[in-house]
Amino acid sequence: MKVGFIGLGAMGAAMASNLVAAGYHVTVWNRSEAATEKLASLGAKVASTPDRAAQGDVLHSMLANDQAVREVFLDGGLLDAMDPDTVHVNHATISVALARQLAEEHAKRGLAYVAAPVFGRPDVAAAGKLNMLLAGPHAAIEKVKPLLEKMAGKLWPLGDNPERANVVKLAGNFLIVSAIESLSEATVLTRAYGVNAADFIELMTSTLFASPVYQIYGRAIAEQRFTPPGFALPLGLKDVMLAQDAAFSERVPMPLAGVLRDSLLEALADGAEGMDLSALARASERRANLSGREETSRSIKR
Amino acid sequence: MKVGFIGLGAMGAAMASNLVAAGYHVTVWNRSEAATEKLASLGAKVASTPDRAAQGDVLHSMLANDQAVREVFLDGGLLDAMDPDTVHVNHATISVALARQLAEEHAKRGLAYVAAPVFGRPDVAAAGKLNMLLAGPHAAIEKVKPLLEKMAGKLWPLGDNPERANVVKLAGNFLIVSAIESLSEATVLTRAYGVNAADFIELMTSTLFASPVYQIYGRAIAEQRFTPPGFALPLGLKDVMLAQDAAFSERVPMPLAGVLRDSLLEALADGAEGMDLSALARASERRANLSGREETSRSIKR
Amino acid sequence: MKVGFIGLGAMGAAMASNLVAAGYHVTVWNRSEAATEKLASLGAKVASTPDRAAQGDVLHSMLANDQAVREVFLDGGLLDAMDPDTVHVNHATISVALARQLAEEHAKRGLAYVAAPVFGRPDVAAAGKLNMLLAGPHAAIEKVKPLLEKMAGKLWPLGDNPERANVVKLAGNFLIVSAIESLSEATVLTRAYGVNAADFIELMTSTLFASPVYQIYGRAIAEQRFTPPGFALPLGLKDVMLAQDAAFSERVPMPLAGVLRDSLLEALADGAEGMDLSALARASERRANLSGREETSRSIKR
Amino acid sequence: MKVGFIGLGAMGAAMASNLVAAGYHVTVWNRSEAATEKLASLGAKVASTPDRAAQGDVLHSMLANDQAVREVFLDGGLLDAMDPDTVHVNHATISVALARQLAEEHAKRGLAYVAAPVFGRPDVAAAGKLNMLLAGPHAAIEKVKPLLEKMAGKLWPLGDNPERANVVKLAGNFLIVSAIESLSEATVLTRAYGVNAADFIELMTSTLFASPVYQIYGRAIAEQRFTPPGFALPLGLKDVMLAQDAAFSERVPMPLAGVLRDSLLEALADGAEGMDLSALARASERRANLSGREETSRSIKR
Repeated sequence: MKVGFIGLGAMGAAMASNLVAAGYHVTVWNRSEAATEKLASLGAKVASTPDRAAQGDVLHSMLANDQAVREVFLDGGLLDAMDPDTVHVNHATISVALARQLAEEHAKRGLAYVAAPVFGRPDVAAAGKLNMLLAGPHAAIEKVKPLLEKMAGKLWPLGDNPERANVVKLAGNFLIVSAIESLSEATVLTRAYGVNAADFIELMTSTLFASPVYQIYGRAIAEQRFTPPGFALPLGLKDVMLAQDAAFSERVPMPLAGVLRDSLLEALADGAEGMDLSALARASERRANLSGREETSRSIKR
Repeated sequence: MKVGFIGLGAMGAAMASNLVAAGYHVTVWNRSEAATEKLASLGAKVASTPDRAAQGDVLHSMLANDQAVREVFLDGGLLDAMDPDTVHVNHATISVALARQLAEEHAKRGLAYVAAPVFGRPDVAAAGKLNMLLAGPHAAIEKVKPLLEKMAGKLWPLGDNPERANVVKLAGNFLIVSAIESLSEATVLTRAYGVNAADFIELMTSTLFASPVYQIYGRAIAEQRFTPPGFALPLGLKDVMLAQDAAFSERVPMPLAGVLRDSLLEALADGAEGMDLSALARASERRANLSGREETSRSIKR
Repeated sequence: MKVGFIGLGAMGAAMASNLVAAGYHVTVWNRSEAATEKLASLGAKVASTPDRAAQGDVLHSMLANDQAVREVFLDGGLLDAMDPDTVHVNHATISVALARQLAEEHAKRGLAYVAAPVFGRPDVAAAGKLNMLLAGPHAAIEKVKPLLEKMAGKLWPLGDNPERANVVKLAGNFLIVSAIESLSEATVLTRAYGVNAADFIELMTSTLFASPVYQIYGRAIAEQRFTPPGFALPLGLKDVMLAQDAAFSERVPMPLAGVLRDSLLEALADGAEGMDLSALARASERRANLSGREETSRSIKR
Repeated sequence: MKVGFIGLGAMGAAMASNLVAAGYHVTVWNRSEAATEKLASLGAKVASTPDRAAQGDVLHSMLANDQAVREVFLDGGLLDAMDPDTVHVNHATISVALARQLAEEHAKRGLAYVAAPVFGRPDVAAAGKLNMLLAGPHAAIEKVKPLLEKMAGKLWPLGDNPERANVVKLAGNFLIVSAIESLSEATVLTRAYGVNAADFIELMTSTLFASPVYQIYGRAIAEQRFTPPGFALPLGLKDVMLAQDAAFSERVPMPLAGVLRDSLLEALADGAEGMDLSALARASERRANLSGREETSRSIKR
């Protein structure tokens, strides 16, 4: 089986590596060529243009955002250049609007299209343990499944409408940001009463909230370790806004999403542009002015 | 060691039972006598007034709320009747304001006071596996620790200021309600795109959010099973409001708490008065009018 | 007609002065005696205890808050000392819960009770131009109307249930705080694009929002003039919280009120404790970190 | 002076009529020709393509939204067809992003560009009494001022950067929606206590909030008269979202805007698609379930 892979950021590179390691003939392309070197050293073939990577049985893409996907596949003409026998598997986190448009554009050209966004950080991708959401035509999915299983610890089928995988991905990221914001607010509340932040976070994340998201972000908050970014805060805001866009289209009020958006904006206004999503905690601390005021008790009777 | 136990609701009864089972001489009291029968059958002595239960080395109390604690200990005069050698361990979820007042009132009378609120439902209490928060004078805590270990899977020491245990308990319950609200909003968003609620919840709560709170409440939401109440929704609102009160006293803004309060009120206005906290999910569904409108796609271009 | 007046703060003093000026025999009482001097110089009789002021045909009270009203009328026993022929007119801004309790306590004792909270600052009170809300038994209202007309530019009858006047007063103060918060957010948005705050505020408050509240608070925001407090910010927060309490009792979600509460808390955490309600504008400015960051454009592509 | 006018909706038609009535030679164009008839009957010349309307000294445009402006001026090539001597005055309510782009595209071609969005409904436009915001190069503004004065009761100069007029327009519409939401929440709160909605609204809008916006929308809410739409609710949501977009670009948190967005979405989900902005009041009423529950008092002790 001949496979193409477009988009070799931290996630894409780890995913493509697993396909190479599994013995597939993989042709890769990336906008900046530097990122292709590691894959080449593992045995991948490097294409100089995206259409050269799109000539196999399957084309995987893991581009950064809506804009990159549009530029390569729509404006750049890659869809027009593709062969009807090639299945396109799109792993990117994109808007539901673009998801819908892509499904239509593939259908118009008789191309098989599968949406397969993932949960997991680069280390999880490298270990081939991603949680992969999966939506698209049954036949296409069956064809690519063996490849996906090299990259994912588990596949989560969501039916034949690709946009469903994308909205689930956005909803998941909304949940992640919600968890961080709530943990941040709770931590500041208890700190105001003299409770040590690390103690509180350890208590919560080893009992009621003993799950990966709370533990990973909780540790960063407890240690005030916000760089280097694993999941960059501006990307977290972008995903919350994409969730809001999806909610708008279907008239779904999401009051928590509104709060998250503003807290993220507040963190950005205060210098978190290059920080990890966990730096959202700085907004809660800033609102309470914890560092700015006296640490003596400031109780005021209601 | 002679032990008293006041307040035999579902939680208190299970906790006291573990003390009896461990061989302690336990004297119990409860406002309504019916609740004492089971403990009597296990070997506890039943007191007709609370002061009779307060004559041992330790007095545990697990009363329902601020009002019940005030009525028994302050207005009812129990504090005045207690012996300075008796350590009072208060397991109730109460306001930080009352926590502070209780600490002062015990100190005035030379009484040792420990706050020890717990996380865990009645089945966890029965199994002796509660997570127990612990704050109070060191000597008093050392004295009662063997008893607490019969009731708790783990003790979480939080220093010598009792109110800290109470604010941590309130912060924890705020986190629980936040988790439910965010899961509810995310589920409604994906449902609006045709994703099955149970599928979405299973995906999230077996991966990124594979922790007790998400799993217990997620299952209830997926099955729309909101009665009988395990943790009654009005009590959840009460605790969010106690967290807001604590935040107010120390000038800590908590925007998520404000959203939770209104979502809970909306659920109550729509008939959730006798339901479980998981019925908070009904508010998200109602806001999006999911059941009320056509299931056909209603996408509107922005 | 013999009239008593209890509570001579800035508002009460101005209101009582108008009764004296109209020729009524007024007996005044105030907790701190200093405040009675001006009224005495105008011709009022000064009582040394509140019950001495309560022996006429009508007793007006304008106390600071729930606590002061409770202390004088309930705990202090004034209600028990009052004559059934005396009508009590309560001008204070109090909680709906206390309003209800007062109505019951008066009824128990056969006393006539009218709630008559007011809108207007001290200068408006001095001019006898207050807007006065009015709820209570018809006969009692008819009896006191001539007095009220000396203090109010307009009377707004709201039926015979006193608590209605109080909930309307709280709803009105909620509207005032909402207006300030929205004006603050809008001003910060336009400032971020280089629009002068005073220009924006003048434009809005002389056209679409040409009303007293927008103009008074808008001017203070434009001039960043937050002291001395006309309507103190902590009292504004108190009233928003009383509106939330009233909303809670009747299961009314009020999402704006939640935002106002947190913005006011944020202002307080940042030093607005002794400032005017208009200092709420500082919270919006702080969240956007307008003063803290470079004034150069920081546009980031979405 | 020869003048062109593009976009003859209710607002544009009224504005153009005033130019004709003032004696200018006006050439109009509108996408659907029906709308041009009334102007023709008044003496305007009707162009069959937009470039024919753009050949005078000034070109006014009052198109519906970003999309229409883009289609006509950018994608449709009108900018390329324009003469450098023609000043373009854009009255439309558009995004700040498009405002910025238009300024750049005009500058590239050496065209003078003035942003002049307006406040006021069609009847105000017909009376020539609009409040008109004004930003652009000084010379261009001086040239067109006599024309603008035929349409506006007052001009509000905001400097030479056109986008400032647009952000002020969006901030103003945000204030309008804020006013309606707060009035709605306050009205529902008082209704829950038995206060008549019309009484409450009259009280507020004839005293503290005696300004056009509160009075116009307050009357509609009091009368539950939500059709026909004067300012359609979906357009109100669009403008709130444009304000949020502008706030996002400059990192300005706007918590009220988030609440407004969700309340508007809730109203839309419940059938307000074809209603006036005042139908936002239905969301508050729905959240409290006022019509759905018993009208008897439902007070619950906290």
